[in-house]
Amino acid sequence: MYKKRTVVFLIVASMLISCLFTLSLTGQLSFADTGPARSGIFADTGKTASKDGIKKIETALELVKANYVEGVDQQKLVDGAIDGMMNALGDPFSSYMGPETAQQFSEQIEGSFTGIGAEVSMENGNVVVVSPIKGSPAEKAGIKPKDILLSVNGESFEGLSLNEAVSKIRGPKGSEAKIKLKRAGSANTLEYTIVRDDIALETVYARMEKGGVGVIEVTEFSMNTAERFRKELENLEKQGMKGLVIDVRNNPGGVLDIVIDMAEQFVPKGKTIVQVEDKNKRRGKTDSGGSGKAYPVAVITNKGSASASEILAGALQESAGAKLIGEATYGKGTVQTSFNKEFGDGSLLKVTIAKWLTPKGEWIHKKGIQPDVAVSQPGYFSVAPINKEKTFKYDMLGEDIKSAQTMLEGLGYEPGRTDGYFSKATENALKKFQEAQKLEATGVLDAKTAEALEAALVKEIRDPKNDNQMNRAIAEIRKEIESPVSKK
Amino acid sequence: MYKKRTVVFLIVASMLISCLFTLSLTGQLSFADTGPARSGIFADTGKTASKDGIKKIETALELVKANYVEGVDQQKLVDGAIDGMMNALGDPFSSYMGPETAQQFSEQIEGSFTGIGAEVSMENGNVVVVSPIKGSPAEKAGIKPKDILLSVNGESFEGLSLNEAVSKIRGPKGSEAKIKLKRAGSANTLEYTIVRDDIALETVYARMEKGGVGVIEVTEFSMNTAERFRKELENLEKQGMKGLVIDVRNNPGGVLDIVIDMAEQFVPKGKTIVQVEDKNKRRGKTDSGGSGKAYPVAVITNKGSASASEILAGALQESAGAKLIGEATYGKGTVQTSFNKEFGDGSLLKVTIAKWLTPKGEWIHKKGIQPDVAVSQPGYFSVAPINKEKTFKYDMLGEDIKSAQTMLEGLGYEPGRTDGYFSKATENALKKFQEAQKLEATGVLDAKTAEALEAALVKEIRDPKNDNQMNRAIAEIRKEIESPVSKK
Repeated sequence: MYKKRTVVFLIVASMLISCLFTLSLTGQLSFADTGPARSGIFADTGKTASKDGIKKIETALELVKANYVEGVDQQKLVDGAIDGMMNALGDPFSSYMGPETAQQFSEQIEGSFTGIGAEVSMENGNVVVVSPIKGSPAEKAGIKPKDILLSVNGESFEGLSLNEAVSKIRGPKGSEAKIKLKRAGSANTLEYTIVRDDIALETVYARMEKGGVGVIEVTEFSMNTAERFRKELENLEKQGMKGLVIDVRNNPGGVLDIVIDMAEQFVPKGKTIVQVEDKNKRRGKTDSGGSGKAYPVAVITNKGSASASEILAGALQESAGAKLIGEATYGKGTVQTSFNKEFGDGSLLKVTIAKWLTPKGEWIHKKGIQPDVAVSQPGYFSVAPINKEKTFKYDMLGEDIKSAQTMLEGLGYEPGRTDGYFSKATENALKKFQEAQKLEATGVLDAKTAEALEAALVKEIRDPKNDNQMNRAIAEIRKEIESPVSKK
Repeated sequence: MYKKRTVVFLIVASMLISCLFTLSLTGQLSFADTGPARSGIFADTGKTASKDGIKKIETALELVKANYVEGVDQQKLVDGAIDGMMNALGDPFSSYMGPETAQQFSEQIEGSFTGIGAEVSMENGNVVVVSPIKGSPAEKAGIKPKDILLSVNGESFEGLSLNEAVSKIRGPKGSEAKIKLKRAGSANTLEYTIVRDDIALETVYARMEKGGVGVIEVTEFSMNTAERFRKELENLEKQGMKGLVIDVRNNPGGVLDIVIDMAEQFVPKGKTIVQVEDKNKRRGKTDSGGSGKAYPVAVITNKGSASASEILAGALQESAGAKLIGEATYGKGTVQTSFNKEFGDGSLLKVTIAKWLTPKGEWIHKKGIQPDVAVSQPGYFSVAPINKEKTFKYDMLGEDIKSAQTMLEGLGYEPGRTDGYFSKATENALKKFQEAQKLEATGVLDAKTAEALEAALVKEIRDPKNDNQMNRAIAEIRKEIESPVSKK
């Protein structure tokens, strides 16, 4: 069940709105070893001082309500005020969420939601199934990849955004979703009645590569991730795994306790996993109670590896002798906690409450962690799509032409340049591509050619042979297996 | 005293931060002719309903203060909250200003401030005098254009932004500013002691063109603008003016009463100047008590003519038979009022309280007013400056090359294309330009050539013969003077 998340660039819009880059702390932050808690640096800015500020905000609210030319929605003004207050902190990781976003955030942290369990994307204005989630009601009912969903309970998806459609498909556990859909090969529309249920989001994908190299991709650190990871790791070890690659590319983070739990399996007893510093500058260390692993481990990171991913990478690099392969990480060195009971209306305040440091005490915020072996992906992995409403030809220039040139180069044609100027060489490369695709060899970049280019490129990106970072990580582990310079 | 504001694109950063696009109402909005005021549509959203919202904001503030990892500045959070609340209205003309911005806004509305009275700009990191304002302490003391200001009262301007330097030069009436400066031709630095005073901002510039065509440029509708306008108009009339061009290009607006006062001089008695609709949808008309003018009038507008400028254009077009020349206006059809006493700390809330409509009842918001005679400026009037840290040559492409091509074309050289691709034709045009400027004819766009291009272009833009809109307006008025088809 290997799912290559890095290839989805042009094709899949995720079903979940990702509340990117969080490192959630569930419960209280406390350091048993640092003496009794002091009253804190805010003892002098208590309720009384707040009153003046609150009075000013109230005055503004009253002035707007009494004088603004249009009707005002107080809820919107209040949400705007709290949003503005959080923005004023200048910390992108402290934020306010209204009930709907808060719900999605909690589902992401929990690693589950209630619905039918189909990953969908928007393609040419249609809601299309990417894949039903394994074991979900959608899969059991017989929903297939590429099914085009038309309506739920009589409500058409026409003209809706993907998020609007998804929110209609979702619903409480036990409720029914009557889905109408179109399937390639069927003349009529089909209808399925599906009972919504808890859907566990998969965050761990494992496989065994040749030579006993295990690979585990972790897409997020949700509440259920540690357990899933432990299970997959045991499974690989039972198969006689001789070395492990952990892939946390584009993993935005998750729950602090979960990543500590996972790192503990690799960090030998007594060695530090992570340090946390609270607002009073008190530091606490979390040391491992585990026993470490005898086999070599590598971690693949990129600039989308943030927060909990960086804790894992830092812990394994500094305290477990693991090699980091790929690119420098994102650089998010803070811990957030969520407040929602305080509001009582489903909204939520995420506040940065601490910094975390690597085992050696380095704060990697805005710096990231450098890999031991720097490996980039081919440039065409991150190319932007081509605007298909325009046609481009010789002697024109622009960003779309630049994209097409990057794609041509990635596909082995020779566009001559990749700066966005449509040269003769680019024209010739395009003609060759069109011939290979059995399109008319016009040398003109029209919508059809652009689509063919993108499709060919997606195939290229999906091809494991082009995943430089993964291939290098596997090669490094193989090398260590073959010449076992014991690292412990 | 003609000041061509449209030419300042690359050279002058204004001394004042312009709080663009306001239409201020001073005092209460009231319509004597529409019966007693009703309680309004907000009678049901009084103080009680506000309390829940305020409580929620207070909860968020307390949570942040108690938990955020860094020290928090409550003032910043409160300002952020009010900012966020105003943003939530979705009306760019309703906004909150802290004490400093509020002060600048009030000065702009008043049309005066206290300081030394020198317009300055930032050039190569130096604070350079553009011109001392007529009759100001700076002029009386002997400050000259191009003087480089070094320090005030011992505080150096080195490394400061223009606004930071300006705020140091300003100060209360009667206080002293000891200015150190460098002047071309003087070996030593010079020192002046200048006593700060009230400086009236000039918003009206008048001149007489050949054939008895008067031209009045109005840069803003400040409190003193109507009086200045009346004086300049009388002056022109005394000189035997036969027709008038009013230029409100890039005029962001100002005070409602002021523009009504000015329009009244042209709109015949009993005809409508403007209509205003309050939030209860009650409309009030303001009719003219003036007598109109016997001579033809034209108004020049562009997309920077907003608010009060549009009221003037609409009133003169619909009720005084004036011709509008130029481009469609900005399209701001709302009236704001300012609240500051309510806060008591110098901050200010600008709130949209009404819509205004043209005499015929049209709401031009987001549409603008179309000119009777559409005339554009040459494309090179709005070209972006060239990045002088890079060098560009044949076969390269980019925005800077596009700018250079537009400049070359504007200067009469033939770059072949203006899309940003550095062609052979562009290279040849550049060589010719370099020869004409006595630069080495390399055909390479380096910093020196870029500076020469920009300097030549500024000269071209400053040349009155290239102001298509002004020239057309004057021509239209001349035509009307010569063949007096009486319009009244």
